[in-house]
Amino acid sequence: MSTPDSPHDLPTFADIEDAARHIAAACIVTPLLESAVINARVGGRVLVKAEGLQRTGSFKMRGAYNRMRLLSADELARGVVAYSSGNHGQAVAATARLLGTTATVVMPADAPRTKADKTRALGAEVVFYDRQRDDRVAIGRRLAEERGLTMVPPFENRFVMAGAGTVALETVRQAEAMGASIDVLIACCSGGGLAAGCGLVMRALVPHGEMFAAEPVGFDDTARSLAAGHRVSNAPGAISICDSVLAPTPGELTFEINREHLTGALSVTDDEVIEAMRTAFRDLGLVAEPGGSVALAAVLAGRLPLEGRTVAVTLSGSNIDLASALRWMGA
Amino acid sequence: MSTPDSPHDLPTFADIEDAARHIAAACIVTPLLESAVINARVGGRVLVKAEGLQRTGSFKMRGAYNRMRLLSADELARGVVAYSSGNHGQAVAATARLLGTTATVVMPADAPRTKADKTRALGAEVVFYDRQRDDRVAIGRRLAEERGLTMVPPFENRFVMAGAGTVALETVRQAEAMGASIDVLIACCSGGGLAAGCGLVMRALVPHGEMFAAEPVGFDDTARSLAAGHRVSNAPGAISICDSVLAPTPGELTFEINREHLTGALSVTDDEVIEAMRTAFRDLGLVAEPGGSVALAAVLAGRLPLEGRTVAVTLSGSNIDLASALRWMGA
Repeated sequence: MSTPDSPHDLPTFADIEDAARHIAAACIVTPLLESAVINARVGGRVLVKAEGLQRTGSFKMRGAYNRMRLLSADELARGVVAYSSGNHGQAVAATARLLGTTATVVMPADAPRTKADKTRALGAEVVFYDRQRDDRVAIGRRLAEERGLTMVPPFENRFVMAGAGTVALETVRQAEAMGASIDVLIACCSGGGLAAGCGLVMRALVPHGEMFAAEPVGFDDTARSLAAGHRVSNAPGAISICDSVLAPTPGELTFEINREHLTGALSVTDDEVIEAMRTAFRDLGLVAEPGGSVALAAVLAGRLPLEGRTVAVTLSGSNIDLASALRWMGA
Repeated sequence: MSTPDSPHDLPTFADIEDAARHIAAACIVTPLLESAVINARVGGRVLVKAEGLQRTGSFKMRGAYNRMRLLSADELARGVVAYSSGNHGQAVAATARLLGTTATVVMPADAPRTKADKTRALGAEVVFYDRQRDDRVAIGRRLAEERGLTMVPPFENRFVMAGAGTVALETVRQAEAMGASIDVLIACCSGGGLAAGCGLVMRALVPHGEMFAAEPVGFDDTARSLAAGHRVSNAPGAISICDSVLAPTPGELTFEINREHLTGALSVTDDEVIEAMRTAFRDLGLVAEPGGSVALAAVLAGRLPLEGRTVAVTLSGSNIDLASALRWMGA
């Protein structure tokens, strides 16, 4: 029987439509914004899905709530655990508070301070691990076993991916309302849950459109996995300021979807990401964290031909330490 | 006969409803955002109307378009002129481009560079003046006469104020949709057009609610005019980082409305404004310019009792030089 925890279930487009109805209780419909300056610069129309304005500052609230709404009374009484670079953790913490349960969040010790602070402010316990040395999945599983907690995975789950897919569902509908039709959608990509959910929506609603994942250079595991035809990992030792999109390998479930629906994957440098953060600040009035800016960075860096086309990008998160933002954007 | 230029006509609530229908062609419905962190901090519910996401980065697009949509074919053929600290100028420039006419914008020489740059990028001619020495209204009128241009005032006009009032119309409706009812609305205030438009909406839809204007210390002409019972000017020589809200005196028309509808006016220091800008950045994912942050600053500085109450604020603009933002917020 399929359960919310089934490790092999893939989401469908109907799951995403269902998620959209349910998450309305906890998430906002974020605006789809555009800037005449950006459009003139790239020679096309760029629609920016401002997920940094979502509750807890990233799209992760959609998947966390869509999975956790299915927790049983018994599971709610015992609590949940999640591992996260910081955005999924905040989403799980906020949802736990909404649903009246408790959350434990396993987070890298070098996560932006604001992510740990906000997760704690939402009432969760934060357990740090060493990004280079420790296995966050194993730590999460051990906590789940020891404390009887339910694991809320950041992407490898049918309902988490379906929640993430609502980003694209809203984007396609908002674009229509603006008189635009999307030729290309680019999603920021780490484990691949957002790209997978968005790909399902594009296939269903914009079947002739192109769907790309964007990744940091050195963390282009999805690009290389697509090329290899199977999941490959990033080489150890790479570094990037894009803390939220550094997962070492595509997910099994996410890659099963992404290998089928992705047109391709685009890689961007930290400098290109910083230019995207500056552009979001100056031309859109939006705070953008590095990992959430990789899709916009790919557009601004000219990774795709855009002349006369309409491209939508996820600007996926806004959780960045002010001091880091000042240092990077001021350079 | 009343015309779009009549210097004595005041807007009505019906004008604001009418404006809302018309400006949909040029303006977006900006989101009404809240943050659990901010709510916990003030002990009430704070709803933030994110007008920095509006086209051209401020609420000014609403009034400019609502006035300029009434330009005759002859007026469109000749062009428009506006004086502005920079946000109204961008709005007039963008609207001129939309309507196929030309704009000349009179702007202080010390305006943030991004405001002049963006106004020019939108195709307008920018004429600078000295904020301490020159009379911007006189310069605007001379240009209008010499070149046969139609003046689009920043606040002293029925249709401009009605456009600004749509900010409150959306806010009240969005709050309802969120299950909130507004006890207090605070609008950022310079010439008083936004406060006047919002006050008319509050009187019509939330008659028992309180309506405040927020101003920088030293530029509290509306507060002192309310106290005096007639319009008084700011003492010369005051300085503030809040470049967009430094008009020397309340407008005649705006004050006629504001003296009747305002509960009061609140003054904030530059340090309180910077704290509001930091809070918008950190807890809302929003870029906020100083002048557009005075209402949020008043809330965060505890100018009003908020325990258990719901207060809505306009976060009115996001046009700030990145370098200035870094310098102020990083201090």
